[in-house]
Amino acid sequence: MKLSPAQRLDWLRLIRSENVGPRTFRALINHCGSAGAALDALPDLARRGGAGRPARICPREDAERELAAAARLGVAFLGFGEDEYPAQLATIDDAPPLLAVRGQAAVLKEPIIAMVGSRNASAAGVKFTEQLARDLGAAGFVVVSGLARGIDAAAHRASIGTGTVAVLAGGHDSIYPPDHAPLVEALIEKGAAVSEMPLDYGPRGRDFPRRNRLISGLALGVIVVEAAQKSGSLITGRMALEQNREVFAVPGSPLDPRAAGTNALLKQGAVMVTEAEDVLAALRPIIGRRVELPNREPRIEDGAPLPEPSEDSRARIVALLGPTPVSPDDLIRLSGASATMVQAALLELELAGRLRRQQGRVALI
Amino acid sequence: MKLSPAQRLDWLRLIRSENVGPRTFRALINHCGSAGAALDALPDLARRGGAGRPARICPREDAERELAAAARLGVAFLGFGEDEYPAQLATIDDAPPLLAVRGQAAVLKEPIIAMVGSRNASAAGVKFTEQLARDLGAAGFVVVSGLARGIDAAAHRASIGTGTVAVLAGGHDSIYPPDHAPLVEALIEKGAAVSEMPLDYGPRGRDFPRRNRLISGLALGVIVVEAAQKSGSLITGRMALEQNREVFAVPGSPLDPRAAGTNALLKQGAVMVTEAEDVLAALRPIIGRRVELPNREPRIEDGAPLPEPSEDSRARIVALLGPTPVSPDDLIRLSGASATMVQAALLELELAGRLRRQQGRVALI
Repeated sequence: MKLSPAQRLDWLRLIRSENVGPRTFRALINHCGSAGAALDALPDLARRGGAGRPARICPREDAERELAAAARLGVAFLGFGEDEYPAQLATIDDAPPLLAVRGQAAVLKEPIIAMVGSRNASAAGVKFTEQLARDLGAAGFVVVSGLARGIDAAAHRASIGTGTVAVLAGGHDSIYPPDHAPLVEALIEKGAAVSEMPLDYGPRGRDFPRRNRLISGLALGVIVVEAAQKSGSLITGRMALEQNREVFAVPGSPLDPRAAGTNALLKQGAVMVTEAEDVLAALRPIIGRRVELPNREPRIEDGAPLPEPSEDSRARIVALLGPTPVSPDDLIRLSGASATMVQAALLELELAGRLRRQQGRVALI
Repeated sequence: MKLSPAQRLDWLRLIRSENVGPRTFRALINHCGSAGAALDALPDLARRGGAGRPARICPREDAERELAAAARLGVAFLGFGEDEYPAQLATIDDAPPLLAVRGQAAVLKEPIIAMVGSRNASAAGVKFTEQLARDLGAAGFVVVSGLARGIDAAAHRASIGTGTVAVLAGGHDSIYPPDHAPLVEALIEKGAAVSEMPLDYGPRGRDFPRRNRLISGLALGVIVVEAAQKSGSLITGRMALEQNREVFAVPGSPLDPRAAGTNALLKQGAVMVTEAEDVLAALRPIIGRRVELPNREPRIEDGAPLPEPSEDSRARIVALLGPTPVSPDDLIRLSGASATMVQAALLELELAGRLRRQQGRVALI
């Protein structure tokens, strides 16, 4: 599959519109048949979902401006389903429809391993990270990480020569932390920086967990080197489990708070890493077979028209919803409405900014 | 069961005689009917096994002298099968027939946990050991260890108040290392020191692995705190697995050589310990049920007379033996001799100093 320039513009407008995330994007394409048709349908759908005000649709001019600025910066947009789109990333539920890539997009086709850890890293942690990243790079792995200080930066630096991918929490024109901009320039020579956010978007705290799913999503496995209890790296490790990625953790002394998270992961069944061979031994069987593309690509130009739920069935579905997440299957069973009808009602609510999705379940905001 | 003074003297003479280890002791009692009868049979058996010279039998006077010296030192001999004999220790293959105990024999009836580790311990390792030993002591465990410098001594010191058991590699009158003699005096107030060796026996290198089997044998589980690769503590951990004891290990940085052994144990499935609760959670189900005495106590005064193998069958059995350990079952199958006959021939060879046993298999020396 290859997006036409017009389609790519529509895709960008759709994913940049208010209340449209990766999952809603996919549902809209499937129901409306194309991003263009979805853009036309958005105002009506949001109104039917009970939006207080019309949801903001990304203007054509804004999207054109982003594409032009991206071209100047050397950023390419890979569309979900296109040949260049990273196959591993396509397997996650909420894969970004468009991945903005700067540098060598080809490295995204190589076997990728994620390395994450504390910003406040110990000297020993940094040293171990460098050794491990070098060894895994030499073994043919591309190392992906989050460009943060500490472990992330050490992993990138040690694998610049063999290929490393930085996943940005913000846009390509708003590198965080700013003093790592030279590191990005260096790593795109043989590697890449990727982002799903607008070019000039400056990341806030809540954007980091969203970014972390891309780190684990791109990789066959995630190595957590140092992590305190309740740290972001630990969340990345748990997210990796949900994405069926192999989770690795580096052990440490019980007296070292930076090992509390990794030791906890090990108690929960993560694979212990004290040398590169531990990672290679676990991933060899996975790399042996080609990574499969999922069979749930968004269909383009062949969707069925979205049904409009009756007032009555919409009211019944909304009444069943609350702040506690429930499964769509339960909504279908309890409302008596058809699956398509429930999906349509949920899509409307989402576009109206009234619904949140959480691990396949839905709740009112 | 309670040994008479005469029986205890015979048991001591038998186990102190040349080429008689715990397994041979048991075989002799079972075949000859009593230690006294075994002492009478020893010269003939050794000669039939092809001893170059008569095996040395412990003279009655030597055993009497040892019993008298032990009494002066406050050392009691617990016989395998007697009520005071530690139930856990009785479950191992090569439990000592007589365990020399100084201090409070009653602590050997409490739930016991072993803690072992490097002599060359890190400050963090010592600190963690002290915390863990205190917590496990407070939870009702008696802590057993090997009186060595480093982790062992830290474990003993931290559990002096709640009860700790030192397993000596030498005899009670030859404490090693000598500067830990005051520690022994302190720990026998509420705990005990135990040994299977003659009172004045000074331990050599090869005696430590033998001693280590008693540390794990007395305990429900063994915690390895710090251990280099190929260290004695690691061997204790592996021995504990063979004895069906729970094995615990404390994680450490891959860059710390003192964690190489414990991390290796964790990779092999040892339970990770970062706090006392990890140990308690694993042992609670085991402590819940009363520890069972094994049903293979040596029978006293009711043995069947030992058969004498024919020259022919003895020659066939010896021909099947070599420096590579083989199982007695294979010998029975390949020699065509009866199980009793093979056992008798092996016992003779053992008493002649020509046979070694290794994990249930036998080989010529």
